[in-house]
Amino acid sequence: MTGQSIDAARLLGRIRTLGEIGQDADGRLIRLAASDTEKLGRDRFVAWIEGAGLQVAVDRIGNIFGIWKPDSVTDNAPLMLGSHIDTVIGAGIYDGCYGTLSGLEVIETLRAEGLTPSRPIVVAAFTNEEGVRYAPDMMGSLVYAGGLDVDTALATIGTDGTILGDELERIGYAGEHQPGFPRPHAYIELHIEQGPVLEREGIRLGAVEHLQGISWQKVVITGDANHAGTTPISMRRDAGHAAARVVTFLRDRAQASNTPTVATVGCMRFEPDVINVIPSRATFTVDLRDPDEERLREEEAALATLLDRLSAEEQVGVSVERLARFEPVKFDQNIVRLIEEAARERGLACRRMTSGAGHDAQMIARIAPSAMIFVPSIGGISHNPKEYTDDEDLVAGANILLDVVRRLATEGLPA
Amino acid sequence: MTGQSIDAARLLGRIRTLGEIGQDADGRLIRLAASDTEKLGRDRFVAWIEGAGLQVAVDRIGNIFGIWKPDSVTDNAPLMLGSHIDTVIGAGIYDGCYGTLSGLEVIETLRAEGLTPSRPIVVAAFTNEEGVRYAPDMMGSLVYAGGLDVDTALATIGTDGTILGDELERIGYAGEHQPGFPRPHAYIELHIEQGPVLEREGIRLGAVEHLQGISWQKVVITGDANHAGTTPISMRRDAGHAAARVVTFLRDRAQASNTPTVATVGCMRFEPDVINVIPSRATFTVDLRDPDEERLREEEAALATLLDRLSAEEQVGVSVERLARFEPVKFDQNIVRLIEEAARERGLACRRMTSGAGHDAQMIARIAPSAMIFVPSIGGISHNPKEYTDDEDLVAGANILLDVVRRLATEGLPA
Repeated sequence: MTGQSIDAARLLGRIRTLGEIGQDADGRLIRLAASDTEKLGRDRFVAWIEGAGLQVAVDRIGNIFGIWKPDSVTDNAPLMLGSHIDTVIGAGIYDGCYGTLSGLEVIETLRAEGLTPSRPIVVAAFTNEEGVRYAPDMMGSLVYAGGLDVDTALATIGTDGTILGDELERIGYAGEHQPGFPRPHAYIELHIEQGPVLEREGIRLGAVEHLQGISWQKVVITGDANHAGTTPISMRRDAGHAAARVVTFLRDRAQASNTPTVATVGCMRFEPDVINVIPSRATFTVDLRDPDEERLREEEAALATLLDRLSAEEQVGVSVERLARFEPVKFDQNIVRLIEEAARERGLACRRMTSGAGHDAQMIARIAPSAMIFVPSIGGISHNPKEYTDDEDLVAGANILLDVVRRLATEGLPA
Repeated sequence: MTGQSIDAARLLGRIRTLGEIGQDADGRLIRLAASDTEKLGRDRFVAWIEGAGLQVAVDRIGNIFGIWKPDSVTDNAPLMLGSHIDTVIGAGIYDGCYGTLSGLEVIETLRAEGLTPSRPIVVAAFTNEEGVRYAPDMMGSLVYAGGLDVDTALATIGTDGTILGDELERIGYAGEHQPGFPRPHAYIELHIEQGPVLEREGIRLGAVEHLQGISWQKVVITGDANHAGTTPISMRRDAGHAAARVVTFLRDRAQASNTPTVATVGCMRFEPDVINVIPSRATFTVDLRDPDEERLREEEAALATLLDRLSAEEQVGVSVERLARFEPVKFDQNIVRLIEEAARERGLACRRMTSGAGHDAQMIARIAPSAMIFVPSIGGISHNPKEYTDDEDLVAGANILLDVVRRLATEGLPA
C-alpha cells in the first residue's frame, strides 16, 4: 500500500516553527491553553490549514479542525487525525504538535498524490490537552466525545483566575460548532512515546493497542512520635517504616509479575521529620497503572490488603483517599494491525505497546475506533526542553500514518 | 543500709516551683541555657542551696555546685550528684530538674540524719545540657570533664546570635572556678527514663549500666526522574524505592537481633515529590544506637554494605554524610550493683537498662566512676509538657539515690 512519502522538510520545518512560538525571555516554551501565546500557535496552524486548501472549523470548546472533503466523498463520517498544540510550562516541541502537524502533512501529501478518498479526512487540534491552566486535562477531546458538558467546561476557572470560555472568546477561538461535529469513522493519533521503551529496544515504531488505566491514591499512615534512642523496636508505632513497607511491596509485586503493571510512589513526607524522632505520620501517593481493568483492580485490592495487614501488625492508623481513577482504554485491533502492516512494508521494526501517558485518543476512543502510533523519545524524556526525537523517526512515523490513512480512506475499516 | 527517707513534700514542692519558672504567656516552659528565665531558675536553685546551709560555687562555664564539706572529711574528692536545670522549648518539668533537686534533697536529708561522711557531697547543675540555644548539648559537663576547652565553649554563638560567655556574664553566672573543680570520687545522676520501658514492664527503677553510642548519618540517593506511566519497572532508577529498602532493611535487622540495637529513619524527603514522577532523589537520615561499640560498628558496616548493593543493583547514586558519632558509655558496675541492692532493700522492682538519650553522666564518666538511676516516664513522653512521672516514683527514685549516697559517703567505692 506504500505510495509516495510525506514532505519531510515541510513537516520538520513546521515542527520547528511552531516550537518557536511561545518561548519566553529565558527560551522556555510555554503555550498554555487559550493564552496569548497559544493564540499565536493556533493562528499559525490555521494559516497552514488554509494554505493547504482545507476548510477550517472551530467548535465551541475551541477544538480546531482542518477538513478535506472532496466531491468524491460517499460517506460523510471522516477519518480523523490529530492531537493538540497547547503545552506545559517549559515544554519540548514535539508533544502534541508532532501528531497535529503530521495529520496536516498526511492530508496535503494525499491531496498531492491525487487520492480519491471515500470519506472526508480531518486534522484536529484539541483544546487544553495538558490541563496545566484548566483542569481536567484532555478537556477538548473529552468534551468532543461527550464526556463533559461544553458549558461546564467553558465555565472552568484557571489557575490564574481566568474563565476558559472568556479566554477562548478573547483569543478568537470560541467557535460555533457543537462538539462532536464531525463524528469520525476512525481516529489515529501519532505521538512521541514519552517513555524509554522504543529507544532502549532499538525499535522505530510502536503500534499502541492499549492506554493504561490509572489509579491514584493518597495514603496517610499514623503512628507515635517517640524518642529514637529510648524506644525499643518492639514498642514502636513507626509510620515511616510502614510507609516504606508499602513502597517495597509495590515494587516487589510489580517486578515479580509478567504484566505491564507499573506502581510508583512519587510523593513521600514524614512528620515531624526530625532525625531522632520516630515518624508519627507518613503521607505518600500511590500511582498504579495497568492496561487491563481487572488487573488494575487486583493491584488496588492487593494494596488495600497490605494496608490492613500493616495496620494490624504495626498498630498504625491508615487512611486512603482516591485522587483519580481512569479505566484502561483498548484501542481498535484493526487499526493496530494496519499500523503493523504499514511498518512491515516500509521495513521498519514495530512493536505493540501500551501508552503509559494519557492522550486525546483515549477520549475519542469512546465514540470511534481509535489507535495511536508512537515514535521513540530519546531517554524517555518529555515535558522538558530536552524532549527529543530523531528527524528520521519523526519522518518514519508520519509515513506510517500516511500509509494507514491512505488505506482507510479508500477501503475503510474492516467490517 | 536503709535509714530514713527524703522529705517527699519538700522535693515535690521544689520540682513544681522550679517548673513554674520560665513559663511563657501560653504556659509553655522555656528555660534556655543562660537566658533571663534560666537566670531565675538558677537564682531559685542557689537560694535553696544556701537555705540548706551548703556552700555555693560556680565555675567559668556556669556550672553551679552546692557543696557539703563537713569537718569530718578525710578525702577531698566529693561524691557528686546532679543533672541540669536548663530546658528545651515547650519542656516538661522533670527532665534534669528532678535529678538536680533530688541531689540537693539527699544532701539535706543526710545532714539532718547526722551522717558523718568521709568525703564532701556535692550537688551539680550543669550548664546547657539541652543544647537548644548553644551547640553542642551537654556542654557544661563536657567542659567540666575536659572534653571541650572552656574558652572555646564560652565563645559559642547561639541560635539567637548571642555569645554564651557574654550571656553568662550578663546573668551573673560566669564563675571563677576552673572547670574540673571539684574532681569527683564518683557521680550519680537520677533522671526520668524518657522512654517507655519501665512503665510498660511495670518496673519502678532502672539501674542504668550503659549509655548508647550514637551514629547519625545523612544519606542521599539519586536516580532518574521519569514518567510514572511510561517507564517500565525494569528501566527505573527509583531513588525513593532504594530509600524505602534501607528503611525496611534496618527495621528487619534490628527486629531479628537479640540486641538492644535501635535504628530509626526520622527524616525523609523525595524529589521532585510529584505523584506521577519517579523520585530522582531521596534524602533521609539514619539514627543508629547501641550500647556496644563493636556492635554499633557492625550496624554501620551493614548499612554501608546495603548501600553499596543498592547502588549496584538499582543503579542509583549514593552519598553518605556523617552528622554525629558518639561511642557508647559503660557506667560503673559497682555503683550499678549498689543501686540494685538499694532497690532490693526497699522492696522495689529494678532492672538494668541502657540509656537511649544523652545525659551529663556520659561526660562525667570520662573522669569518674558514674552511673544513673531511672524512674518511669508515663508513655515514654519527654521534651513535651505531657512529660510525667508519678509522685510515688519520683520519691522512690530519690530514696534509692539517698541510700546509695549514704553508703558511698561512708564506705566509698569498692576498691
